[in-house]
Amino acid sequence: MSQPLRHQLYTIIFGTDTSAGKRFDVVLLYAIVLSVAALMLDTVVVIQERWPGLLYRVEWFFTILFTIEYATRIYCSPNRRKYVLSFYGVVDLVSIVPTYLALLITGANYLLIIRLIRVFRVFRVFKMFRYLSEANLLVRSLWLGRRKILVFFLGVLVLSTVFGSLMYLVEGPEYGFTSIPKSIYWTIVTITTVGYGDITPHTVLGQVVSTLAMLTGYSIIAIPTGIVTAEMAAELQREKTLKKCTNCGKRGHDSDADYCKWCGAEMV
Amino acid sequence: MSQPLRHQLYTIIFGTDTSAGKRFDVVLLYAIVLSVAALMLDTVVVIQERWPGLLYRVEWFFTILFTIEYATRIYCSPNRRKYVLSFYGVVDLVSIVPTYLALLITGANYLLIIRLIRVFRVFRVFKMFRYLSEANLLVRSLWLGRRKILVFFLGVLVLSTVFGSLMYLVEGPEYGFTSIPKSIYWTIVTITTVGYGDITPHTVLGQVVSTLAMLTGYSIIAIPTGIVTAEMAAELQREKTLKKCTNCGKRGHDSDADYCKWCGAEMV
Amino acid sequence: MSQPLRHQLYTIIFGTDTSAGKRFDVVLLYAIVLSVAALMLDTVVVIQERWPGLLYRVEWFFTILFTIEYATRIYCSPNRRKYVLSFYGVVDLVSIVPTYLALLITGANYLLIIRLIRVFRVFRVFKMFRYLSEANLLVRSLWLGRRKILVFFLGVLVLSTVFGSLMYLVEGPEYGFTSIPKSIYWTIVTITTVGYGDITPHTVLGQVVSTLAMLTGYSIIAIPTGIVTAEMAAELQREKTLKKCTNCGKRGHDSDADYCKWCGAEMV
Amino acid sequence: MSQPLRHQLYTIIFGTDTSAGKRFDVVLLYAIVLSVAALMLDTVVVIQERWPGLLYRVEWFFTILFTIEYATRIYCSPNRRKYVLSFYGVVDLVSIVPTYLALLITGANYLLIIRLIRVFRVFRVFKMFRYLSEANLLVRSLWLGRRKILVFFLGVLVLSTVFGSLMYLVEGPEYGFTSIPKSIYWTIVTITTVGYGDITPHTVLGQVVSTLAMLTGYSIIAIPTGIVTAEMAAELQREKTLKKCTNCGKRGHDSDADYCKWCGAEMV
Repeated sequence: MSQPLRHQLYTIIFGTDTSAGKRFDVVLLYAIVLSVAALMLDTVVVIQERWPGLLYRVEWFFTILFTIEYATRIYCSPNRRKYVLSFYGVVDLVSIVPTYLALLITGANYLLIIRLIRVFRVFRVFKMFRYLSEANLLVRSLWLGRRKILVFFLGVLVLSTVFGSLMYLVEGPEYGFTSIPKSIYWTIVTITTVGYGDITPHTVLGQVVSTLAMLTGYSIIAIPTGIVTAEMAAELQREKTLKKCTNCGKRGHDSDADYCKWCGAEMV
Repeated sequence: MSQPLRHQLYTIIFGTDTSAGKRFDVVLLYAIVLSVAALMLDTVVVIQERWPGLLYRVEWFFTILFTIEYATRIYCSPNRRKYVLSFYGVVDLVSIVPTYLALLITGANYLLIIRLIRVFRVFRVFKMFRYLSEANLLVRSLWLGRRKILVFFLGVLVLSTVFGSLMYLVEGPEYGFTSIPKSIYWTIVTITTVGYGDITPHTVLGQVVSTLAMLTGYSIIAIPTGIVTAEMAAELQREKTLKKCTNCGKRGHDSDADYCKWCGAEMV
Repeated sequence: MSQPLRHQLYTIIFGTDTSAGKRFDVVLLYAIVLSVAALMLDTVVVIQERWPGLLYRVEWFFTILFTIEYATRIYCSPNRRKYVLSFYGVVDLVSIVPTYLALLITGANYLLIIRLIRVFRVFRVFKMFRYLSEANLLVRSLWLGRRKILVFFLGVLVLSTVFGSLMYLVEGPEYGFTSIPKSIYWTIVTITTVGYGDITPHTVLGQVVSTLAMLTGYSIIAIPTGIVTAEMAAELQREKTLKKCTNCGKRGHDSDADYCKWCGAEMV
Repeated sequence: MSQPLRHQLYTIIFGTDTSAGKRFDVVLLYAIVLSVAALMLDTVVVIQERWPGLLYRVEWFFTILFTIEYATRIYCSPNRRKYVLSFYGVVDLVSIVPTYLALLITGANYLLIIRLIRVFRVFRVFKMFRYLSEANLLVRSLWLGRRKILVFFLGVLVLSTVFGSLMYLVEGPEYGFTSIPKSIYWTIVTITTVGYGDITPHTVLGQVVSTLAMLTGYSIIAIPTGIVTAEMAAELQREKTLKKCTNCGKRGHDSDADYCKWCGAEMV
């Protein structure tokens, strides 16, 4: 029973069930990581001076490789429109376009803008996540706690606004607190316990207020931990209890349940 | 069935059940955020120089808007005294008064004091919380653990006093530890793992003591997390165990259960 | 039924059941906090210059007060030897002796040493804990997890030794890593995420190693949290289950137990 | 019943059941810690100048001691090959070889390389873990969560790449962001909340992006905590649920239970 080339390519490129499909995915993964590494090393002055043009050629090698991959994906896709408009279809396109754009738009003044567009090729890395099923629990835990985390961040922003305004009044422009937005930047540096030290309080009152800000940050650092831990524990519990009622078909019963909690039928 | 204007206004301004009431709340929310943003941008020197007077006019626009809102709230309130003396009534008043005060109290010397009064308008942001019901679980978890958190902070203060006094003796004024209160400020910067680096230990003994302070901070950072996580888990559990089966009398049902999971009887 | 003075004093000073005993404790608490505050403010140069001698008199006022308290405690104690040799008996003595010692040992050269002895008066603050029963759960949770925390700290020290030695080799003395002990100090500053920035990596390899150290620190910061959270949850659970078997008298049963798990007798 | 010397030595050196075996382990532990301490103090310039040659002799004393220990271990081992090729066998050898190597490879130019080899003697510290059984729960919790932690670190690296590239574009080389790898170093310093302050954002847009990076770091700091806490709680739970009642068949008994808490039958 012979398979047409298009279907065979589809199982290799999109599928992960055959050994050829698995090998393709691993090779692609290495190619993505290498191309991103080359892109990053391109900005190191020492490397640019010692091997001029090397990383430019590496860049083109990977761009042509990914262009072939993109063309093949479109060719063998059963629903081409769906693939092109899907999230990974757009990412695949966006990760090859900037190198070609750099050819068309020349001129010294545009160099910085082109560089900015090329950075979007970093999104190639996101394609890696297609290969990681372990990320699911973490992402789901964050997703379930998203509203609580959002409210938490709103609270942090309000706190930062209050502390930032206070510090702007207490310390003033002569000690680096030149405006309220800059004071808010300082407050977030302090509350998140990053503490660069580029702006520090110099007056006694300012040091008292920063002490309060630090202890506040130290205390509320517990809240996202509490949210994520609670959601993760609940998610792990849910996985264990994928018990399904044979009568109403609903899932989500406790492992010690004898009767369905929605329809009352005895559980097997 | 015609409604008098006062009652109609009341359902729009205070209520959130009608679509008009919801739209009013969203518009008000944007107005609050915009007015606070204008207040903060007013302190940025670059903006003040490029558009002189712009933010002053924005300030007056929002102040008049909020004055009309405050007057309407008093007008349509069924119990006027109660509203004026309530927390949000006071916040509504305090957030418009400073701009008018700045007109009355003129003179170059008073400018700084007026600025200080105006900062209280930042409290407008707090009005946002009226619209966030998700904040309840977080606030309740913190509230239930308030005594433990207070004791924890007392412990942190005692530890800071001991470490601060020790560092003042070990390092002394020549390395920035000019007094015990300043050493305590340094200790809190260290224990909360903020670590500005404006004051750092220079002697060998001082570095040993700071190492101990850091490891202590690293260890006790776990305590508020433990408190909040435990309270949050207990709160989630409590929501679950409020339901009791009327047939077998057992508790511990999920909040969405329709039938008892142990005896199969319908839950009320 | 008249009580002798000694017993009456005992119930006021040592007891907390009578209203007089409670009032005494609160007054003592304020006196301790005030005397420690005076001791700390004594090191601030500005205060010393503006009010010379003031804090010296405050110091003596509290020392005499605490001496009277100490003498009364010995007088009214039923078992005098036991009180004097108890932890708080020694703390009470140590917190008044340094001021008297400063009188006997005079001379400009000894001033610094006397200051060192006086700092021990900070331990007065520890007496506060006698009045805080809420601290029990926190202290017990830490105590139950003490072996795990000790092992964790040993692990942190070994990790710091390895990373410190590595950084000493990679960065070397020219970038501030002048010796292995100093490199270990830097590693602990980094792993605990304090990050003063007084010593920072300058070579590429050094920045790679520090990145590893930071991610390690970020990862193991979770371990003490896990220990404390687990112990605190277990401790809260234990408090709820102070159910006692009427047959064998043992405690520690689950709240849903119908039979004693040690002797098999039915639980009431 | 006389024992041959070889077996007697084996029970002392490898075993921990006899009092002689325990005493040997404790002495060895102190010897390891002292030799590592000597190695580290050897790099402090002040000590080298005051006591020249002292630490060199200490170094040789411990090397000869550990050589004798290593020879005895090989002599009395029942399966010599297995011991030599085991993890601790290799560690035992690697911790004595560098000092002998330093004799053979002489010359001023090689000094630094020899120092590098000697640092491997720090691995002696790892031998300490042989004596700590408490480390098991911590190590097992980390081991069970290893896949989730790995995925988490991959996510952190991708995030750092994105934020690092963004900051390189926004801030540029004039403010210290000289290349994308260096920007990634800065991002990890920021996300892990270490915050050295050797590179800090200076433009307004850069400060906005760093604020986002900090809040991201503050939020995802919760994930490893959640993983470790969940695994640790599950591990403690597993210890509890390994016991099953032979009468009613229910699980979930405490590890110290003698009778089933549901049916009252004696537990085996």
